[in-house]
Amino acid sequence: MPDERTEGALEGSAAAPVQGGSGDDHLRERLVEPHTVLSGGFLTVRRDVVALPDGQRATREFVEHPGAVAVVPILDDQRLVLVRQHRYPVDRVLLEFPAGKLDRGESTLACAMRELAEETGYTAAEWAFGGEIVNAAAYSTESLWIWFARGLTPGPARLDAGEFVETVVCTETELHELDRAGQLPDVKTIIGLHWLTSWRSGTREMSFTAPDEHESQARPMMMRP
Amino acid sequence: MPDERTEGALEGSAAAPVQGGSGDDHLRERLVEPHTVLSGGFLTVRRDVVALPDGQRATREFVEHPGAVAVVPILDDQRLVLVRQHRYPVDRVLLEFPAGKLDRGESTLACAMRELAEETGYTAAEWAFGGEIVNAAAYSTESLWIWFARGLTPGPARLDAGEFVETVVCTETELHELDRAGQLPDVKTIIGLHWLTSWRSGTREMSFTAPDEHESQARPMMMRP
Repeated sequence: MPDERTEGALEGSAAAPVQGGSGDDHLRERLVEPHTVLSGGFLTVRRDVVALPDGQRATREFVEHPGAVAVVPILDDQRLVLVRQHRYPVDRVLLEFPAGKLDRGESTLACAMRELAEETGYTAAEWAFGGEIVNAAAYSTESLWIWFARGLTPGPARLDAGEFVETVVCTETELHELDRAGQLPDVKTIIGLHWLTSWRSGTREMSFTAPDEHESQARPMMMRP
Repeated sequence: MPDERTEGALEGSAAAPVQGGSGDDHLRERLVEPHTVLSGGFLTVRRDVVALPDGQRATREFVEHPGAVAVVPILDDQRLVLVRQHRYPVDRVLLEFPAGKLDRGESTLACAMRELAEETGYTAAEWAFGGEIVNAAAYSTESLWIWFARGLTPGPARLDAGEFVETVVCTETELHELDRAGQLPDVKTIIGLHWLTSWRSGTREMSFTAPDEHESQARPMMMRP
């Protein structure tokens, strides 16, 4: 009987956008009163009072994050540039596409260009926007914007003091093998890889152009109040 | 000249596991002194003093998370069961595979079975472990274990008070269309979808068995001290 309960649900969500719309008032939680419970360090944490769809009050605790950008850098021989670094919270060395947080007011493309250069030294002639993902929607405002870069030119990396990152070059096939073996757990890296493979197989569109032709789509689409 | 800088790097990381190993001392940060700076609410935040690979001291601030599980539920007609819910931190209604946090001491499979039943009412005859992903490794200890479920039988959902979630049934094709259109931003849902498609195309292995044959791989692989 799954149909009885769900019939029309997708239709409804496709008519309105899946991500929201005024048709979702029966799901939506609304801000009643914001509270900041941790700030001044690296993380800012809020504990807001919200109104549930039925009018009841509840609290929602979450990290305020400026958003981040990841880059899938494609060499002329089609190999991919990644970084390895120790991620203290999960106590593992992860193989990841280069990534970093947005500076205040920075476009996602400017951030992508900056992070690629800082972490790996590469600059890119052409960029294509891949998509926006949300990685911890239950407790963080973070969005990650994934950009693809090609026409790469090497240069010196400019790591900050206290930053220990090494650059690694892999083929797409090697990365799929690592993914299948459970050795590629980082979400932006798995998703960038699968989007790349979809694009190569013709089932996903991306348009590569010089950076200055991207301004319209390069800004964060959503900022919290 | 990318090769000059990176030659052998992948080899090195493939000889040792990509995710760690004693060959990574030049990258690894070590705990010097733990501090809890926020607790008692929903989130616990730590600000640890760590030793960098060069011996310098730094602080690392992160959310302590119990880990979570997501389920890709496959109906007999191959359609997939998802949920739509408002995620307050990102202020959007997201289409997601059913998911939830691990209870203390709970195996990831027991959590998957519980969350699927609570959020959608379905129980499943067969389960296959898909993989473990880390979704916010820069500032959270969270891992997400993705399970696939088939042989589904519907039943009544058991949502908690204050939980507003609706069940939606989609085809794999519809979900890929949403992904391409930027309407499927949730990371566990994108990854579950791509792993499912890889499995169907024969490039990813998964073995479905009754729940009681899964005990060995169902426990979290890593717990922080």
